[in-house]
Parts: sequence; structure tokens; C-alpha cells
Amino acid sequence: MNIAQLIGQCVNDLPVIAPTAAPRKLVLAYSGGVDSEILAHGLAEFAKLYAQFDCQLVHVHHGLSVNADEWVLHCQAQAEIYQLPCTIARVKVKLAPRTSVEAEARSVRYEALLAQMCTADILMTAHHQDDQLETILLALKRGLGPKGLSAMGKVQSLDNDKWLIRPLLDLSKSDVEAYAKTRDIRHIQDESNFDEKYDRNFLRQSIIPALKQRWSAIAATASRSAELCAMQQSVIDEELAARLPRIQIELGGECVINLADLAQYSKAWQALLLRGHMDFLGFAPPSKVQAEQIIAQLLDAKVDANIEIKLTDVLIKRFKGAGYFLPMAASAHSANIAVSSIDELLEAGVNYGHNKLIQATLAINAGVRFPRPDEEVTIEFSLPGSTRCQPQYRSKGRELKKLWQEFEVPPWTRTNVPLLCYNGKLVCAIGYWNEKAFLCVENETGLNFKC
Amino acid sequence: MNIAQLIGQCVNDLPVIAPTAAPRKLVLAYSGGVDSEILAHGLAEFAKLYAQFDCQLVHVHHGLSVNADEWVLHCQAQAEIYQLPCTIARVKVKLAPRTSVEAEARSVRYEALLAQMCTADILMTAHHQDDQLETILLALKRGLGPKGLSAMGKVQSLDNDKWLIRPLLDLSKSDVEAYAKTRDIRHIQDESNFDEKYDRNFLRQSIIPALKQRWSAIAATASRSAELCAMQQSVIDEELAARLPRIQIELGGECVINLADLAQYSKAWQALLLRGHMDFLGFAPPSKVQAEQIIAQLLDAKVDANIEIKLTDVLIKRFKGAGYFLPMAASAHSANIAVSSIDELLEAGVNYGHNKLIQATLAINAGVRFPRPDEEVTIEFSLPGSTRCQPQYRSKGRELKKLWQEFEVPPWTRTNVPLLCYNGKLVCAIGYWNEKAFLCVENETGLNFKC
Repeated sequence: MNIAQLIGQCVNDLPVIAPTAAPRKLVLAYSGGVDSEILAHGLAEFAKLYAQFDCQLVHVHHGLSVNADEWVLHCQAQAEIYQLPCTIARVKVKLAPRTSVEAEARSVRYEALLAQMCTADILMTAHHQDDQLETILLALKRGLGPKGLSAMGKVQSLDNDKWLIRPLLDLSKSDVEAYAKTRDIRHIQDESNFDEKYDRNFLRQSIIPALKQRWSAIAATASRSAELCAMQQSVIDEELAARLPRIQIELGGECVINLADLAQYSKAWQALLLRGHMDFLGFAPPSKVQAEQIIAQLLDAKVDANIEIKLTDVLIKRFKGAGYFLPMAASAHSANIAVSSIDELLEAGVNYGHNKLIQATLAINAGVRFPRPDEEVTIEFSLPGSTRCQPQYRSKGRELKKLWQEFEVPPWTRTNVPLLCYNGKLVCAIGYWNEKAFLCVENETGLNFKC
Repeated sequence: MNIAQLIGQCVNDLPVIAPTAAPRKLVLAYSGGVDSEILAHGLAEFAKLYAQFDCQLVHVHHGLSVNADEWVLHCQAQAEIYQLPCTIARVKVKLAPRTSVEAEARSVRYEALLAQMCTADILMTAHHQDDQLETILLALKRGLGPKGLSAMGKVQSLDNDKWLIRPLLDLSKSDVEAYAKTRDIRHIQDESNFDEKYDRNFLRQSIIPALKQRWSAIAATASRSAELCAMQQSVIDEELAARLPRIQIELGGECVINLADLAQYSKAWQALLLRGHMDFLGFAPPSKVQAEQIIAQLLDAKVDANIEIKLTDVLIKRFKGAGYFLPMAASAHSANIAVSSIDELLEAGVNYGHNKLIQATLAINAGVRFPRPDEEVTIEFSLPGSTRCQPQYRSKGRELKKLWQEFEVPPWTRTNVPLLCYNGKLVCAIGYWNEKAFLCVENETGLNFKC
């Protein structure tokens, strides 16, 4: 077994990049445990063969073990032998009540590793086949589908513009241990690896040895299952990327689903498209039953039914043939904004939340008039329900609520429309209409507002 | 918990069929163990509510346990109480050296159950959530992908024209046991359930209790994983059904892949299409690595390279831009056939293997001449390589081998072409050409051959 070669195979699977001024970094997440130790050993050899990479070790000091400082000394001493630069990154793992130490440590560790990397750089971890089996079993524990069951890839993109490689993914734990033993490679023992309070350790201590004793190839075969899941998932991702835009539309600044388009697909595709859309918007995936209920409600409920489905992080509503997916937290009304002068709007615009800008432009013979010196300019997000309005194109006034209905603005997005007021009187519902009473007269220069 | 209701839900998910003379059978695979016992108990109630079904119990006597005869008595006594008819099906489980008793018992059991059923009938099994987890873990042991990880469905088609339902699939083992205990339901204990020589029992005794002790919901969450796999698989099946016909072509009686068409797809799709095509032809699925190699060889090998990939049950070859998948066993040459008279060919035709018929038709002023009384008619499948032939449209003779090349007939399918001979001399390469020397003269009635 030649570990430098395994690293080389992963690196060769990466897309070629244009040569850069600085050599591309290859960073090993180096704990000093047996897995990353043999990878460090292999990296020393790889570095001599592939001079185009800047090979580095990064040891993350989590501050969780009383032995952590000793481990730093071990890693620094080994790095000397390997003739590889070794960075020690000290992190703080928050031990908040409802977070798992495991997950939190992992998150700060990746943060620290990424901090050492630039665009196109490569992170390398020492995960092996037995780790893969653990990951698959943890995916079953969480009820994940093919995406989760794909577990870890040998070559994956990381943080959008970087790469993650796992050269040892086809080796078993005992391959790794045999390699270290034969070559007499010194490594540390992280005592937390034996602490069964961590889910991974429970699997490592209690489940996987029993499985391997009966089925010696279980880690290899389960890894094949993961690869097949990954293959199918990549086809699904490809198809989803082609189909999602066909059912998504932009309405009032929201990306919504056109339900008539969704209904064209088979039941199975509908469920996948729903999951894809929710993933696209950053919401947690629904369970199978939730997905079925959402689709049944959105597509089959009576036309006049008021659909409102609440999940942990999302509120799903239907309005005029479109499905809206709204963040649970974001239903708070926007605060009113005082505008110090129209110049402010004309120059830089006013940010009314989430970096959305309101801007004014001058309009010759059109638009609304400038405020008078005694008029206070504000941007409001709700007016009394009985506010009577008269858009410039209407001969009669109408209730604000009726106008929203005319414009087919869903009730829950009405408070997102900025209403420009002079002394509290509506001048312009930005993006919708100007009020007739505030239009500028002939030959007067007016204002147009947009957001 | 109402088991009659669970059965009802499954039955309602079945497609409605036109009413038939005999009522639709609903057959419970009834071992008398706790799982199928509570289902039999529920079926008794269901039978009263849904008179349109002919509800039956079938107990399979495997002859493997010394207690098997006692179990028969138990089942018959319970059936009396339930007022359900109970058939005892006696089977023999072959204990051949290299087959698993588990797999063989399962196969003869299903055979016996199916023997009790007709088109549209429904089989019902008592699998529950813990069985589902076992099935998923066994799929990982075998390295299966999303299709295998989909495990068991609550409603599935069976044997093409029948159905299989599993009403207990959402209940845990402890739900089942609690149900039996509360209602004081008598059931048998199959001592083989504790025999760890069976893989399922190993999981049931050694692995699943440890997993459930730590993660009480593991069977439920893993079942969700299976459902998500099934959902994705059904989308993939749908897409494959649409795409496979676009890459498959019929060449010389074989369903082959048009490689130029296959090459249009992404790498991930290519692998799925290859698997789909091999499944379509009835071959075992290739591993991920095999699939990659097959595709690389078929699509990327040099034009003149002689591609030949052997898997356990299939030989894969490339010829003139097509991929051929040939059964490993079928390379034996077809035997020559003596034809007693031309009338035989004119009337019923001659079967030359796999129900492929050669037939003759009369042709006025065309075709080849009838055999003379002293000419023996045979159908051969190979002639000496140096046989000189002269198709009717050629002015000169040519080697048989060169003609095959002209017709782009792949070497390994040449022995599938029936060659009609008179006294061992080629008269007609059926489907390709008539020999000039045997054409009938003007105003003579001749023969045309087809297959």
C-alpha cells in the first residue's frame, strides 16, 4: 500500500486549475491519531513527488482534553521528521446546553481549517472505510434519504471554491492500523475516542466490531451502497437543476412555486421537486409524510381553502395558484423609517431591511410632487385597514385592502411593500401605484420611487 | 391500534379492479408467530367489515422444525376461532451445500403462497418496522444501492399480476408484542428465530437491541430512509423507462446500445442507463467500478480496439458503434437442422431454437429454385470459413467472411444466421441474400425464406 499514491489519485481527480502565483495548498487535518498520522507520513512522501503543491499540516487544539498540549508537542515533533510545516490552530468549543460537543467541535474545527485555505486549495482528511460505515449508520439514525446515505465522497467540493479529499476512504481500520504497525509510526491515543457518550464512539465500540466479526466485508459493501446512492443522487441533482426553474417563478420578490406547473409531474417527481425547492430556499427537508401532506394541500385543497402549513422553520401558504414558503421568524412587521430628506433617497437610497434599497429618481412632467418643507417623509409598512386610496389611474377612491386584492398581493407579503408617506398620508405604494392627490402638476419636476 | 383498519388502509391504496365473478382473495402468510398471529386476529375483524374480499390464512409447513406439526394444530385451532379458512401448504426445503436455508425456505414459501392465488389477489405478510431495519442492514451487507435500501414497501406489486401488502410495517416489534399481550392472543414461538446461524436472527439478537437501546427510534428513522430511497428510485425508474428506448436499438435480433446515443448523457446518467439496460436484459447489476470500466471501454477505447468484458453472467462486446450484452452460456453454436421437405417450411415453418421460425413462401418469377429430389435440405449455422459465395446482386463471388463484414454482422452473431443449403451448398443466407447459382429461371415459381 502506497499512501502517497492514494493522495495522488485523489488529486488527479480534481479539475485542473490555471497556474496561480502561489502554489495550491494541500492541508491535512492532522490530529496525530493513527488515521491522520499515517496520512501525514504519506504526505511527506507525496510532497517530494508533487512539488507543485504546498503541503501543510494543521493541528486543531480543541482544548477539550487534559492531554491536548501533549498532542501539540507530538504533532510538532512529527512534522519535523516529515519536514512539513505544521500550524497549530487553537479553538474554543462552546459547551452550550442543547448542542452536542461532537457537532460543535466539528464545526469549529472546520472553521479553523478553512481559515488556513484560499480559493482552489485542498483539505485532506483521514476518513477510512469504517468511518464511512459509521456515517451511513448515523444517516439511518437520522432518517436521511439517498443524499445522506451517500455519506462521504473521496473527492468533494468544499465551501464553494475549495476541495476536500479523503485518500484513505477505501482502506479499512485494520489496514490503517497494520500500516502504522509495520512502519512503526508513532501516534497519539485520543482517550475521547473511547467515550461512548459520543454517537460515533458508540458505533465504533459496540456495533461495528460485532457487524465486522460476522461480516468481515461489511464496511466495504456498505461503502459500495453509499457510492451507488451518490451516483443516483448526482443524476437526481442534475434533473432537479433542469426542472426546478420550470416550476419556480418570482412574485413580489419571493421565489414561489407555480402550482399548475408542479401538478404536471408524477407524484414521485412532485415530492422531489418540493424537497428541491425547499432546499433551494434553505429550509430543512420535510419528512415523507410532511411532503405528501404539503403537496396534497397545495394541489388538491379547494380553490377557496386557506392553506397554511407550519413546519419547524417554514410556513407554507397558497395564494392565487402559487405556493409560498416563508421563514417562520420573518413574519415580524418591518419598522417604519423616517427619511431625513428627499436628497437622501435621490442619492444613496434608504435601506429598508435585508439590504433592500428604496431610491428616488427625478421625473419631468410625471411622478409625485416633492414634499413641502413642513411635510415629514416616512416609509411605512402598514396603514390603518380602512385607509382610502386613489391610484392615479382610477377615477374613484378605494380601500387599501381592496387594492391589494386587485394587485393579487398575498396578505402576508403586504407588509413588505414600502409605503411612502408625507405627514402620514400615502403618496406612493412603491412598486404599485402613485396616489392621484400627490401627482405633480404640468411642467413640474416630480419624483419616481422604486425598490 | 386497530389492525383491521391498517389492513383497510393498505387495501384502499391498491388500484381498483373491475368486479370479477369470484371475490378477490386476501391471503395471509400465517406462521402462528406473534407477528402473523396479531395480523390474523385483525384479519378476522377485517373480514366482517369488507365482505368483498375472500380472506384466507395459509400456513406453510416447512418440515424444518420438530415442532412443525404442533404449529399446524395451533394454526388450525386459531383459524376456527377467527372463523377464517386455513390452508396448510407442505413444502420441502432443499438443503443443498451452497444455498442458504433461509433463502431456500423463503423461496419455497412464496411459491406455496402464490400457488393459492390468482390474478389481482392480495398476499399479506406481517413484516413490521424492526424487520424493515433488518432488511436495510442486510442491503448494506450486500452493498446494494437505493433500490435495495428501499427495502420493503407497504403496498407492492407481486409476480406481475398480484399484490403484496404489509399492514404492520409502521409498527415496532414492541407495539406488536404489546398488542398480543393486551388481548391475550395465543401464538407459537419458532425456536429457529433464535438461531444465530441465520443472518436475520443475528441482527435481531445481537445488533438491533443494542441500536434500539441507544436510539429508541432507529427502526422508525431507518424506515424513513428506506421510504426516501423508494421515492427517489421510483423517479429514477420513471426517467429510465423514458430514456432507455432512446439508446436501445434492435440489431440482428439483439437489443443493443447505440453508443453514440449513450455518449450524449452525463457520466452519472451513463452509469444508470447501463445498469437499466443490463437489468432490462436480465443480467445481474454491475458494481460501480465494473460499470465505470464498461462505459470507459465501450465509449472511449480506440475505434479498432477489440472490446470484450466478461462478468459473471454476461459478455460485453463492441461492434460498429453498438454495445452487445451476450449471455455467458449462449456462445454454443446452434446445431444444424435437417428439413424433411420444403412443404414443412411452406406450411408450419421450422423452429431453429428459442421458438425462432424459418418459413418459406412461394415467389412467382423470383426467389431460389425448389430442391431437386436428390438434394437434401439442411439449415446450417456455420460453413467453412473459405466458403465462396455469390449473392444474386453481385457480379463476382466473395468469401463468406468478407460478406459478413460487408453486412456489418458482428462475428459472434454470425452463427445465429440460418444458412439454407441443398446438399451442403449454400442457397440462401436467410435475412441477407439468395445465392446467384440457385435463383429460379424465368417463369419458374421459386421460394423466398424468412425468419
